[in-house]
Amino acid sequence: MSYAFNNDREYDIIAIGRACIDLNANEYNRPMEETMTFTKYVGGSPANITIGSSKLGLKTGFIGKIPDDQHGNFIKKYMSEAGIDTSNIVVDKEGHKVGLTFTEIKSPEECSILMYREEVADLYLHPDEVSEAYIKQAKVLLVSGTALAKSPSREAVIKAVGLARKNDVTVVFELDYRPYTWKSKEETAIYYSLIAEQSDIVIGTRDEYDMMENLENGNNQETIQNLFKHRPELIVIKHGVDGSYAYEKSGAEYRGQAYKSKVLKTFGAGDSYASAFLYALLNGKDIETALKFGSASAAIVVSKHSSSDAMPSLDEIEQLIAVRA
Amino acid sequence: MSYAFNNDREYDIIAIGRACIDLNANEYNRPMEETMTFTKYVGGSPANITIGSSKLGLKTGFIGKIPDDQHGNFIKKYMSEAGIDTSNIVVDKEGHKVGLTFTEIKSPEECSILMYREEVADLYLHPDEVSEAYIKQAKVLLVSGTALAKSPSREAVIKAVGLARKNDVTVVFELDYRPYTWKSKEETAIYYSLIAEQSDIVIGTRDEYDMMENLENGNNQETIQNLFKHRPELIVIKHGVDGSYAYEKSGAEYRGQAYKSKVLKTFGAGDSYASAFLYALLNGKDIETALKFGSASAAIVVSKHSSSDAMPSLDEIEQLIAVRA
Amino acid sequence: MSYAFNNDREYDIIAIGRACIDLNANEYNRPMEETMTFTKYVGGSPANITIGSSKLGLKTGFIGKIPDDQHGNFIKKYMSEAGIDTSNIVVDKEGHKVGLTFTEIKSPEECSILMYREEVADLYLHPDEVSEAYIKQAKVLLVSGTALAKSPSREAVIKAVGLARKNDVTVVFELDYRPYTWKSKEETAIYYSLIAEQSDIVIGTRDEYDMMENLENGNNQETIQNLFKHRPELIVIKHGVDGSYAYEKSGAEYRGQAYKSKVLKTFGAGDSYASAFLYALLNGKDIETALKFGSASAAIVVSKHSSSDAMPSLDEIEQLIAVRA
Amino acid sequence: MSYAFNNDREYDIIAIGRACIDLNANEYNRPMEETMTFTKYVGGSPANITIGSSKLGLKTGFIGKIPDDQHGNFIKKYMSEAGIDTSNIVVDKEGHKVGLTFTEIKSPEECSILMYREEVADLYLHPDEVSEAYIKQAKVLLVSGTALAKSPSREAVIKAVGLARKNDVTVVFELDYRPYTWKSKEETAIYYSLIAEQSDIVIGTRDEYDMMENLENGNNQETIQNLFKHRPELIVIKHGVDGSYAYEKSGAEYRGQAYKSKVLKTFGAGDSYASAFLYALLNGKDIETALKFGSASAAIVVSKHSSSDAMPSLDEIEQLIAVRA
Repeated sequence: MSYAFNNDREYDIIAIGRACIDLNANEYNRPMEETMTFTKYVGGSPANITIGSSKLGLKTGFIGKIPDDQHGNFIKKYMSEAGIDTSNIVVDKEGHKVGLTFTEIKSPEECSILMYREEVADLYLHPDEVSEAYIKQAKVLLVSGTALAKSPSREAVIKAVGLARKNDVTVVFELDYRPYTWKSKEETAIYYSLIAEQSDIVIGTRDEYDMMENLENGNNQETIQNLFKHRPELIVIKHGVDGSYAYEKSGAEYRGQAYKSKVLKTFGAGDSYASAFLYALLNGKDIETALKFGSASAAIVVSKHSSSDAMPSLDEIEQLIAVRA
Repeated sequence: MSYAFNNDREYDIIAIGRACIDLNANEYNRPMEETMTFTKYVGGSPANITIGSSKLGLKTGFIGKIPDDQHGNFIKKYMSEAGIDTSNIVVDKEGHKVGLTFTEIKSPEECSILMYREEVADLYLHPDEVSEAYIKQAKVLLVSGTALAKSPSREAVIKAVGLARKNDVTVVFELDYRPYTWKSKEETAIYYSLIAEQSDIVIGTRDEYDMMENLENGNNQETIQNLFKHRPELIVIKHGVDGSYAYEKSGAEYRGQAYKSKVLKTFGAGDSYASAFLYALLNGKDIETALKFGSASAAIVVSKHSSSDAMPSLDEIEQLIAVRA
Repeated sequence: MSYAFNNDREYDIIAIGRACIDLNANEYNRPMEETMTFTKYVGGSPANITIGSSKLGLKTGFIGKIPDDQHGNFIKKYMSEAGIDTSNIVVDKEGHKVGLTFTEIKSPEECSILMYREEVADLYLHPDEVSEAYIKQAKVLLVSGTALAKSPSREAVIKAVGLARKNDVTVVFELDYRPYTWKSKEETAIYYSLIAEQSDIVIGTRDEYDMMENLENGNNQETIQNLFKHRPELIVIKHGVDGSYAYEKSGAEYRGQAYKSKVLKTFGAGDSYASAFLYALLNGKDIETALKFGSASAAIVVSKHSSSDAMPSLDEIEQLIAVRA
Repeated sequence: MSYAFNNDREYDIIAIGRACIDLNANEYNRPMEETMTFTKYVGGSPANITIGSSKLGLKTGFIGKIPDDQHGNFIKKYMSEAGIDTSNIVVDKEGHKVGLTFTEIKSPEECSILMYREEVADLYLHPDEVSEAYIKQAKVLLVSGTALAKSPSREAVIKAVGLARKNDVTVVFELDYRPYTWKSKEETAIYYSLIAEQSDIVIGTRDEYDMMENLENGNNQETIQNLFKHRPELIVIKHGVDGSYAYEKSGAEYRGQAYKSKVLKTFGAGDSYASAFLYALLNGKDIETALKFGSASAAIVVSKHSSSDAMPSLDEIEQLIAVRA
């Protein structure tokens, strides 16, 4: 079955949340202490998803806040050249900086990151910088969980979701949990639940749903039973190498396989998954196909150096699916 | 028509929010600069409402946080002696103080207050101090808007409302807007709307609904039209001396008159109104009678010195209604 | 021996620091929980000292910051009526409040206080609100230790002391230690030492010198040995009922007896001591006499209800000294 | 004339302050937006000076705070391998990060930096992490002005300077002004003056002395006249390409020429100057020679890519001086 969107809209996806800088180790398979040079990429889950979607051909826009400095300029230029509408990316005037992520690739299995998230511009997006006129031009509003971590970005997202619902824009919530900025697990669970219950489609890993439910070793059936009491119509739960599951409120369930890949690093898997999954859904493909698109896109990105620049083309995805069929 | 509660519960009302200290000028009809002595009372909207309800005979409990000092001890003792269950009032261990309100009564028309609300204990109620086992013993969870002004109290209230809904506890939202602590009108509107949409009964002044809608000179019909799209079943909008209006989702509307009174000060009118209105509803009286109870209780309290100690008895309310009939 | 001041100045004493509100229990010899009414007085060590000095006939001024509210107005009016020049008391425009001190008098031996010191106006005195033109009109700049507890008041005091030294104004440092606002004992010791080393006269209790030295059970001889390496010329160390000691850099030592008194509460003893001690010094009396003045003034204030309004007259002090001689 | 140190000490220089990470653009002569890769170096003025001094053969130690992460590990390892004693570098346990400096080299004349200084570990050095036993092993305590920008690092430095004076350690104050973290010019001036007045040797650019004096276009003669009233014995004021001036309390004045160089970037000039100047003084060379050493070292570093790794050897410095003589 395919998912129905409000097609009378200019943008396929408008995303809200952070756009940051990744500094990826050029010398890898070693500890970061021994890495001497880094390459700069645009990063941040919702930015990556939007870049990936745009590269696949979707018409996209972005709501976010960037600093008034060289890193901010770079992000805006890169996203604009990727075909994303940047008219609603606000330039911070209070001296906040862009978030940074240094990546450490010790081995394909041992990747870690070193984050700079203090006083970052993206968390200073104000609710009055969120425009109803803009949101109502979208089929999908893509919300990233990390944007809920702190005020005023938190309120900006709550407002955006309210405006999306009011204007029949499908709300897609990518859980995107990062253990930074949040004060406690309980606080995280409260805001994740609040937004998940008001969303139409929820996407995340099993671990992220556990954060939302403030428990360990949660169970997919209980998760969907609770969420389907509220607004969600489609819930995607990813289980890493064991593949991903999609659940519809109607009761239908689907399982997607993970595609094996020569893994360089694990970063960027989730973002590439979401961008291709949403591309497929928005192009009227059925959910089973969308799961394949997501998995194929993730398999390609984990074999490459970046999480944004490495987003695959439609050809690459379709070819991988065909080869592995 | 009367309102149906889940009667299989031990408590009529459990309130969540602040309990503070009022310091009322003993010498009045003068500026506070010339007031030399003050009398101490328990204050804070949800505490006052609970005290008022308890005095009328309801079985009540309170969820809140008080400091570990003489003012905190006084509050707990006073509320306990007023018949309120204080088992869920947490004692702060981090040095936060109780909020203070100095009242200035220049004339019955010119009352003002001087608030101490920096780092107050009530705004440090943590979500993990809110107990599902306790909330599900109540017919009504009474939520006060000021408790939404800051984290972690904000999250404690969002959690409490979620638990109340899950356990079929009627959520009553007393808007209780105070222009302290809130960072902006937009922030206020976002959280007021969020909780109002998830409540069963909403009570406030026309000005407070304007805050919730982030506009000026709002219109009752538009307010109820928006809120009735969500969970609310009963909406009370107070217009001061012009009386109050109650709206049911079914379409029924009621108007209650304000009773004239020899006004000493205007403080405490809203709290006494809510306590008597809820008493009437919980005792199966129809909405028109409940509006009279609210107005009568308010008329009595504004003629007296305090907002808590002066809460009327059932006899006083019924007598006033009878005399003015 | 008497102490020489720069007599070619308009003001005897200009004090810098906090002016607050005391709320003294009207019903005493009981815990504060049972106190129902409070009387309002001006409080805060440097304000009390200035009021006391002014009452004795010194020409005084005050540098401080008060809120733009009824309590701020009251303080300015009271101090002005007490004869103090208030031209350098700045009105805060950022919503800070005045500090509050609720006093609890359980018995003459058990007095405690409940302080409100969060975001108080006095700690927001900015260095650019300290005027060299004003300070250089004084014989004495009186500095209170509590004003060092937080920026920007801390920097305002450091600046004021620098200006006083530059303009040959005698710097008197009243240690006035209060365990609020300070982050650690080490921080306290660092700033107390910094200012004590730059002062001409230092006055405090033995416990306060221990705070300055970050040790317990300190020794007067070691204290004066360390301080006399720096600027101080005269050091007064108070030992409660065991009297007080004055040390001169020249090597002279003096001991003053404490006068017995019918104690109502212990608050205000130090402030009244300082005001009368400085009065005597500034009037050319010898140090032994100044110690008597300090003790007599303290003995009078501890027998009365307030710490500011109760400051004695010259007659009262001289009479007490005469009677006890 | 040469400067006398307390030679009965194990370390020539112990520095206190920040050790950070520089991320220097690999592709230069372009805006940073177009720079895609960065090379990582140790940075931060006192770290650079210590590295430079150590490379020249001085025995050095460092008091500072680094994060418990890969960047922190790198710094400690690099400094240790450079011969610096790192036993008093504390590892932060509260999640603070290392400061970052991205450098932009548009042209030799247009260099700018993008700093990350929010919640950095170096500013969380606590006074109780400063050891008297360590400081008293040094001939020189080198203090960097930026460490005064915020508590508790500010108090750690004030304490260290007090301990140095108490133990006859020469205090060298490198003004090292950076317009980050400081709240106001007045605050900067207050703490810069406080430490300068307590130091033996002060080194800075004319602009930095202007910050200390809170004025514009200051005058060397007035600067030294004010400072020589206090502790300083030797004052170095640098005027960029116009050379540098050294003033002794005795009245002697010296001028050092700046050496021309093929400038790649201007960063690191001050740090390399200080390290070679202090090397010369500590080796008993006269002040004129020390000025030459400083200028030569600066000329070498500005022609290279980093500010730490590029610190010259003694041979390089002596050769440059010989060639340009």
